[in-house]
Amino acid sequence: MNNFQFFNPTRIVFGEGQIKQIDSLVPESARVLVLYGGESARKHGTIDEVLSALGSRHVEQFGGIEANPGYSTLMRAVEQIRSNKLDYLLAVGGGSVIDGTKFVAAAVNCDGNAWQEILVNGAKNIKSALPFASVLTLPATGSEMNTNSVITRYETKEKLAFSSDLVFPQFSVLDPTKTYTLPPRQLANGVVDAFTHVMEQYITYPVNAKVQDRFAEGLLQTLIEIGPELLAKPSDYSLQANFMWTATLALNGLIGAGVPQDWATHMIGHEITALHGLDHAQTLAIVLPGILQEQRDSKHKKLLQYAERVWQITEGDEASRIDQAIEQTRLFFEQMGVKTRLSDYRITADAIPAMIQQLGDHGLNQLGEHGDVDLEKSRRVLEACV
Amino acid sequence: MNNFQFFNPTRIVFGEGQIKQIDSLVPESARVLVLYGGESARKHGTIDEVLSALGSRHVEQFGGIEANPGYSTLMRAVEQIRSNKLDYLLAVGGGSVIDGTKFVAAAVNCDGNAWQEILVNGAKNIKSALPFASVLTLPATGSEMNTNSVITRYETKEKLAFSSDLVFPQFSVLDPTKTYTLPPRQLANGVVDAFTHVMEQYITYPVNAKVQDRFAEGLLQTLIEIGPELLAKPSDYSLQANFMWTATLALNGLIGAGVPQDWATHMIGHEITALHGLDHAQTLAIVLPGILQEQRDSKHKKLLQYAERVWQITEGDEASRIDQAIEQTRLFFEQMGVKTRLSDYRITADAIPAMIQQLGDHGLNQLGEHGDVDLEKSRRVLEACV
Repeated sequence: MNNFQFFNPTRIVFGEGQIKQIDSLVPESARVLVLYGGESARKHGTIDEVLSALGSRHVEQFGGIEANPGYSTLMRAVEQIRSNKLDYLLAVGGGSVIDGTKFVAAAVNCDGNAWQEILVNGAKNIKSALPFASVLTLPATGSEMNTNSVITRYETKEKLAFSSDLVFPQFSVLDPTKTYTLPPRQLANGVVDAFTHVMEQYITYPVNAKVQDRFAEGLLQTLIEIGPELLAKPSDYSLQANFMWTATLALNGLIGAGVPQDWATHMIGHEITALHGLDHAQTLAIVLPGILQEQRDSKHKKLLQYAERVWQITEGDEASRIDQAIEQTRLFFEQMGVKTRLSDYRITADAIPAMIQQLGDHGLNQLGEHGDVDLEKSRRVLEACV
Repeated sequence: MNNFQFFNPTRIVFGEGQIKQIDSLVPESARVLVLYGGESARKHGTIDEVLSALGSRHVEQFGGIEANPGYSTLMRAVEQIRSNKLDYLLAVGGGSVIDGTKFVAAAVNCDGNAWQEILVNGAKNIKSALPFASVLTLPATGSEMNTNSVITRYETKEKLAFSSDLVFPQFSVLDPTKTYTLPPRQLANGVVDAFTHVMEQYITYPVNAKVQDRFAEGLLQTLIEIGPELLAKPSDYSLQANFMWTATLALNGLIGAGVPQDWATHMIGHEITALHGLDHAQTLAIVLPGILQEQRDSKHKKLLQYAERVWQITEGDEASRIDQAIEQTRLFFEQMGVKTRLSDYRITADAIPAMIQQLGDHGLNQLGEHGDVDLEKSRRVLEACV
């Protein structure tokens, strides 16, 4: 097991009807900004429920945060907070809204140019942040219990990430009934996203981290068990509850503590989204099987373990068991209704050079747990994904 | 899945050589009291390593905290802190020292009688506590990442527990090399203790909490895999690392979130320790198989799941599979060198009425996840354990 630090002070408030707990968790004197994305949180009554829980506190609202939260939009929220002396943020939404709120929380106290200070110069420049919390309506990214945030600057087509211990949500309300109204595509994307988060932290090389492996396998098995059922019965409380908690645990630092991590699939996938506008999870479903094939030698032992423990594949020689496990992964994504080939999205081999160019431009030529996924390997991965 | 809140802000600092991180985690101006138990922490150099990490800070020491931390002893630490205006506590030891330090942290700011206020009246009376951290030298209780504390008042033979969010360790250093010198009995006890902690939160009735079940099973499987090897090779870094992290995760709130919990084994075991002085883990090894047999009907589904997923028992009818799983549990404890019968400790059936009397005196007549373990059931359990 590698050395690690694990720290996660976010309080999870889990269960139907728990939005009302906000009243006891937000300071009584707080001047609150409720941030949200589109109109679904309002239409389905979640915003009203949140406002009701906030009672007589001074509350303002800020809507319209994009699916890829935009810098300009978020800076308008910063202005509203400064003008009206607000001091507590409450994100109502999925990963986009929560990611955006993390940036807003850090930007309010930032004297200089927030994009430069927080996203370009990096988290060490963040000295303080407004306290904030979240009400999760779309399980997928784990943003409700981590410090990650990805922000887009549409004017310059830049997309940068930051992370800081100062932007842990103080608490996150996970009410599984709030996900009943999600469209099937978002639900399926969430399952694929959470699944891939686990794989990025699990399928590397063994460091004898037995518990981290068992926990990762438990999360994968759970997603495999509930994923297809969830699509069929989106209003099943038990299924949504298991999905919600699994997606949170997939990226809250726990299974990644003390183990190597990959993330090549995410990095290559980001470029496909940037160039062709595919959903994030669609790119993961395309790239992950390709990465596993390309890296099958260096990932050999963990792929065999994955085959046996997650898919119960014990027949055939080692190469065949690995092939079966990768194929099962692809089939699971397809079963979730997420296509796994570039050609399924009308992207042909002609488009690959531009993706490789972008990876190179962004300095992403040493990806993976060994840093050995260079541009040539990324090209082979993408060619195998057509 | 039941509704739950999960909150755990303790920072885990894991790995060989990590005691040096204390320097960056304790405030520079802190006036520190280092608390420990017997002389082993000093003899093996851990205290020196801690003092070295604390550098030029004002540091005092307080040794002699008992295996069952005693109220009178701890109140002497409280006096030292008040007299010398110390403001940060550092526990170096196992569960006893950390439990004791939690009490000290809360008692320092307690105006009235600390026993009465904190342990009798309960945690709601605790309004503040000194900040503290721990360096773990004996994995078992999970105290390094939870808020539980059990304190003994030897004068009156009382043993009471408290828990408060104010007594989370700020951080805990888990250096697996610090456990190399543990005597085999303490190592074996630690494995049995951690195993039973998981069982108390896992073998109840199903609430469709898939991840909690998978995580619990992963911890049990890990203990089964590493336990006997650990006894044979106590200086194996990888084994001790896996044991240490498993024991912490067994009782840090994670696997118990959103599920029913039992704890009858612990409650009955406490009375055996009180009357006959057995090690805590010895009592668990005796009582757990008895409780599982007595409660096999209400625990039926989880016992079958345990049999299949943890012990790979799939042959035979359901009753036989449950019998095999309970027997495997007992054999595992025996394999760890922890005896599983009262008679192994020269306790005969004559001693049972006094234990039942004590349970009754302590109001422990509605134990278990259904509250249906009354004194009659406890008597049957103990009789089956002779």
